[in-house]
Amino acid sequence: MNNFSLHLATKVLFGEGQIAQLPTVIPSDARVLITYGGGSIKRNGVLEQVHNALKGYTLFEFGGIEPNPTYETLMKAVEEVHNNKIDFLLSVGGGSVLDGTKFIAAAADYLGEPWEIVTSRGKKVTKAIPIGSVLTLPATGSEMNDGAVISRRETGDKQAFMSEHVLPKFAILDPVTTYSLPPRQVANGVVDAFIHTIEQYLTYPVNAKVQDRFAEGLLLTLIEEGPKALKDPEDYAVRANIMWSATMALNGLIGAGVPQDWTTHMLGHELTAMHGLDHAQTLAIILPAVMRAKKQQKREKLLQYAERVWDIRCGTDDERIEAAIVATEQFFQQMGAPTRLSDYQLDGSTIPALVKKLEEHGMTKLGERQDITLADSQKIYQSAI
Amino acid sequence: MNNFSLHLATKVLFGEGQIAQLPTVIPSDARVLITYGGGSIKRNGVLEQVHNALKGYTLFEFGGIEPNPTYETLMKAVEEVHNNKIDFLLSVGGGSVLDGTKFIAAAADYLGEPWEIVTSRGKKVTKAIPIGSVLTLPATGSEMNDGAVISRRETGDKQAFMSEHVLPKFAILDPVTTYSLPPRQVANGVVDAFIHTIEQYLTYPVNAKVQDRFAEGLLLTLIEEGPKALKDPEDYAVRANIMWSATMALNGLIGAGVPQDWTTHMLGHELTAMHGLDHAQTLAIILPAVMRAKKQQKREKLLQYAERVWDIRCGTDDERIEAAIVATEQFFQQMGAPTRLSDYQLDGSTIPALVKKLEEHGMTKLGERQDITLADSQKIYQSAI
Repeated sequence: MNNFSLHLATKVLFGEGQIAQLPTVIPSDARVLITYGGGSIKRNGVLEQVHNALKGYTLFEFGGIEPNPTYETLMKAVEEVHNNKIDFLLSVGGGSVLDGTKFIAAAADYLGEPWEIVTSRGKKVTKAIPIGSVLTLPATGSEMNDGAVISRRETGDKQAFMSEHVLPKFAILDPVTTYSLPPRQVANGVVDAFIHTIEQYLTYPVNAKVQDRFAEGLLLTLIEEGPKALKDPEDYAVRANIMWSATMALNGLIGAGVPQDWTTHMLGHELTAMHGLDHAQTLAIILPAVMRAKKQQKREKLLQYAERVWDIRCGTDDERIEAAIVATEQFFQQMGAPTRLSDYQLDGSTIPALVKKLEEHGMTKLGERQDITLADSQKIYQSAI
Repeated sequence: MNNFSLHLATKVLFGEGQIAQLPTVIPSDARVLITYGGGSIKRNGVLEQVHNALKGYTLFEFGGIEPNPTYETLMKAVEEVHNNKIDFLLSVGGGSVLDGTKFIAAAADYLGEPWEIVTSRGKKVTKAIPIGSVLTLPATGSEMNDGAVISRRETGDKQAFMSEHVLPKFAILDPVTTYSLPPRQVANGVVDAFIHTIEQYLTYPVNAKVQDRFAEGLLLTLIEEGPKALKDPEDYAVRANIMWSATMALNGLIGAGVPQDWTTHMLGHELTAMHGLDHAQTLAIILPAVMRAKKQQKREKLLQYAERVWDIRCGTDDERIEAAIVATEQFFQQMGAPTRLSDYQLDGSTIPALVKKLEEHGMTKLGERQDITLADSQKIYQSAI
């Protein structure tokens, strides 16, 4: 096990009806800006629950934070923060609203040009307005971590920043709020959480038995519960297991003290940027290709994955590994996420351009051993056609 | 899954050499009281590492906190805190030193008679001096939770209190500091962590898949690593896995949203109080007896435990359950912890007195369904002879 530092400081309130607990976690004299996205929280009654819980509070609202939240939109919220002397931000929605809210929190208190928050990867953030989250879409894990991904329309940039100052003070996770999600968002969330787990697991062994088994527990749970959520959207236990898995998948716990490999995310980001595929759709395409390309380097963990996650115990090493990769592909397909570029009418002709973008973004050495070159990435894209 | 609230606010610094990070987590102007136990930290160099890390700090020391820390000893430390205007407590040792330090932290700021902290079960605590922990004995999980068990010599009382105010700000977990532990303490720690996990797992299913699998992951890890730690005390990876398992076993994570059954601890406490057995020794005796006595009520989880933890897949339900209980007993025995009262020359003649003590302490309805009466507890003791 490698050395690590871990600070899971977000308070979690989990379960049906927990939105009513908001007054126990927001100071009663706070001036609160409620941030949200396209307005689904109005249709499904979540915003009403928030207002009912916060009767007597001084509340403001800022809606319209888009998926892949943009600097341009968020800076308007920063203006609202200043105009209304906001001192608490309550994100009500999924990971994009919350990521956007993290930027607002840091930008409102930032003295320079706020885009520096992103270009410095968060290093220049020294304080932020406190944030709380009512999560309605389990996927990104943003509710219990200090990261955010922000886009800038003007330049086409999309970048992550991290700062302990934007870690949410609390996260309210009520599985009932996820009942009304469209099936595509449910599927995307499950695939996203699955691959977050894989990126912290499928590397090389460092004898970190707790982390390995926690990761395997999340994978098994997502495999079992994902298809059920699509079939019966109002099964509370299923939604609860998915929601808790997604939070645990990226709060730092399973990644503490182990190597990580975020290749699939990096290669996927370029596909989203160039072709507009959903984040999770890109991951479902890239991961199997990465698994096959790095079969030798990830051999021991792939065999462990085959046995413990897919119960594959027969055949040669190579056969068991291939069977596990096929099982992974079938799981994504079952969730409605195709696993080939050609499923999206992409014939591979943009691969040179995708690789060029990777180079521009400094992604020239990827993987847990930093041995995935641009040439390797090109091969991975090609094998995913 | 049941609703839950979870706040894992302790920052963890894990790994060899992490004691050197102390200046990053204690304010440089703090007046620090280092608390410790019998002095093993002087012999194994841990205290020296702490002093090296904290050069330039204003440091005081208070040693001699005993296993099962007593009010009488701890009140002397409270006097030191007042005399020296201490504003940070650094516990260097195992769970007893840390539990004692939690009491000191609350008592030093308490306006009434400090024993009320314990009798109110922590409810009367409104503030406390901040605490940090350098842990040298993985077992109790106290380093990442808000509980403490305190004894009072004068009255023979031993009681737990809990307060968010005494949750350690940080925990430094360096597996190397555990190399010099006597085998009996290593074994006790592994058994203690194992049974903490069981008490939050072996109840009835509530479809909490993440919690179940995390618990099973800890049990499997302790079963694999425990005997290795006895055989090769300086195997870093083994010590690291045990240390991380013990912390995870009782920080609230695996117990969030699931029923719990602390019967084994309650019945064990009386054995320690009356006969002086080590805490973990009592647990190894009582748990198998509880498993057999509550076989019907815990049926589904016992079958899951048999399959997932012990890989027992053949035989009738009853045979698989019995095989899992026998495997549990053999594991404790392998760790050097006998599983019968008679192994300690106890013939059962004190059982009526033990049950009377349980009654005095209000333990008349135990178990996840509150259906274990005093008569049931008596039978459990008897079946453990």
